[in-house]
Amino acid sequence: MKPHFKTITIIGVGLIGGSFARICKNKKIADRIIGFGRDEKNLKKAVELKVIDSYTQNLKEAVRDSDFILLATPVSTIIEIAREMMPYLKKGTIITDAGSVKGEIVREIDKILPEGIFFVGAHPIAGTEKSGVEASFLDLFVGSRCVITPTEKTDSTPMEKVKEIWKEAGSEVILMDADKHDRYLAAVSHLPHAVAYALVNAVGNLEEREKGILSLSAGGFRDFTRIAASHPAMWGDIFFINKREIVEMINIFKSTLDNNKEAIVNGDGANLKREFEKAREIKFKIQNCFTPHGRMA
Amino acid sequence: MKPHFKTITIIGVGLIGGSFARICKNKKIADRIIGFGRDEKNLKKAVELKVIDSYTQNLKEAVRDSDFILLATPVSTIIEIAREMMPYLKKGTIITDAGSVKGEIVREIDKILPEGIFFVGAHPIAGTEKSGVEASFLDLFVGSRCVITPTEKTDSTPMEKVKEIWKEAGSEVILMDADKHDRYLAAVSHLPHAVAYALVNAVGNLEEREKGILSLSAGGFRDFTRIAASHPAMWGDIFFINKREIVEMINIFKSTLDNNKEAIVNGDGANLKREFEKAREIKFKIQNCFTPHGRMA
Repeated sequence: MKPHFKTITIIGVGLIGGSFARICKNKKIADRIIGFGRDEKNLKKAVELKVIDSYTQNLKEAVRDSDFILLATPVSTIIEIAREMMPYLKKGTIITDAGSVKGEIVREIDKILPEGIFFVGAHPIAGTEKSGVEASFLDLFVGSRCVITPTEKTDSTPMEKVKEIWKEAGSEVILMDADKHDRYLAAVSHLPHAVAYALVNAVGNLEEREKGILSLSAGGFRDFTRIAASHPAMWGDIFFINKREIVEMINIFKSTLDNNKEAIVNGDGANLKREFEKAREIKFKIQNCFTPHGRMA
Repeated sequence: MKPHFKTITIIGVGLIGGSFARICKNKKIADRIIGFGRDEKNLKKAVELKVIDSYTQNLKEAVRDSDFILLATPVSTIIEIAREMMPYLKKGTIITDAGSVKGEIVREIDKILPEGIFFVGAHPIAGTEKSGVEASFLDLFVGSRCVITPTEKTDSTPMEKVKEIWKEAGSEVILMDADKHDRYLAAVSHLPHAVAYALVNAVGNLEEREKGILSLSAGGFRDFTRIAASHPAMWGDIFFINKREIVEMINIFKSTLDNNKEAIVNGDGANLKREFEKAREIKFKIQNCFTPHGRMA
């Protein structure tokens, strides 16, 4: 059943927060949407675009009447903002987040959650390489996955409401342990970004000494540059918070790359062929679960 | 000035050879186009699609009346086929190729070139992840770059003709030393492919032990799988023939990745931020020279 709230507050009205607000308006999930954020120009734009009804840069004002709060700021700030707003919340308020890393966030917020306030950790796996409210759009989450990471403290009624909103957004909702989520995302999202940054810069460094390399770049390299052009602050945050898993994934990747390098050096065609065919199979395996807008997630 | 030939032979009527043939027909560069290849089903299809006028699987028949021959087979076969056809060629015939690696090819063909037969090494930097004549199309090379790699033996008149055809195809023609070409392509094309194969398989191997990882994959990883789904035989060839440069590029990339890993481990945000910003700049630098169809090159 579609949930309804009198007042929803969006903390961080960017690509994710703005798209979520558009859905809450479009689907009449909220009577009123308040935006909060650091960048006043962006908040003004959000009101102008009718993504939110009003904004404030005073956190107390932003949350005290709220029935539902989405934390959609960079992952490094979520725990701190949650801690800061707790004293102002009224009983019954549901908090959720959209952070790309979940373990630390759900553990820390669970610790500071007062009686009668509910928290549901979530990660909508969607995004584009753009940021800010102007990049937000209603269909961002259509066909994507949203991972909800309940803990022992998570109440089922608020969780159902969070699930229902994400279903309204067009997402397939998956429940998963927060640490497992962080490990899996390290593999399919954080590792590709770390690798793309390194590859683009390795070639960029060469260009400084051997002019003209970039002028020959075609598709392969261009795909990497697009991945590597994602929001820098957001990715710095993710790398630090999910450090342990990401470093492990980088090591696993390096050992596979070393094996392939060995095969190239030794002219081991049978080995390379096996690797190429395996890669092709993986592509076919996942191509049926494509996320239309989930490109940078 | 647009060149004209009575008979053009396409050795290997696949994505590149087929698209080249379509251009020669469309622009009336050839009166007659003969196809040669191993796969008779593909050659029949090529005639059916009117990409070529006729085909033969007899190399002598394919080339003896030809005025212009394009070698568009996998790079490992180009030198061998060139050697095999030399005795059958008539004086004045121009041979060119479309191999992605150039140094060895231009050196070896120069050695076996009889008096009065001309060779011009070329690499049209374009492609898609598909292969075979059915994947070919007229506009494949529009907006792409074609590198021509002349040697001391390369005659200017035949080279001008090859250049003109590629211009007719919609390519920007660049002249470059063959070894320099191989080094540059190792950086912007072969390295991204090697990295994509390794990343997709590293994650695929994890999936075997930790089911469900792939189900969370979104854009970053999907881009890698697309790159890694390219023609396996073609890429095995390229890796072996350009081994030395590719191995060096893998080593350069690994050292950049290690530096970034160090920055993550040490929580060195300033360093990571610098890396991210550099990657963004490189993206903006190259985005003005986009190749519409040159995605897998």
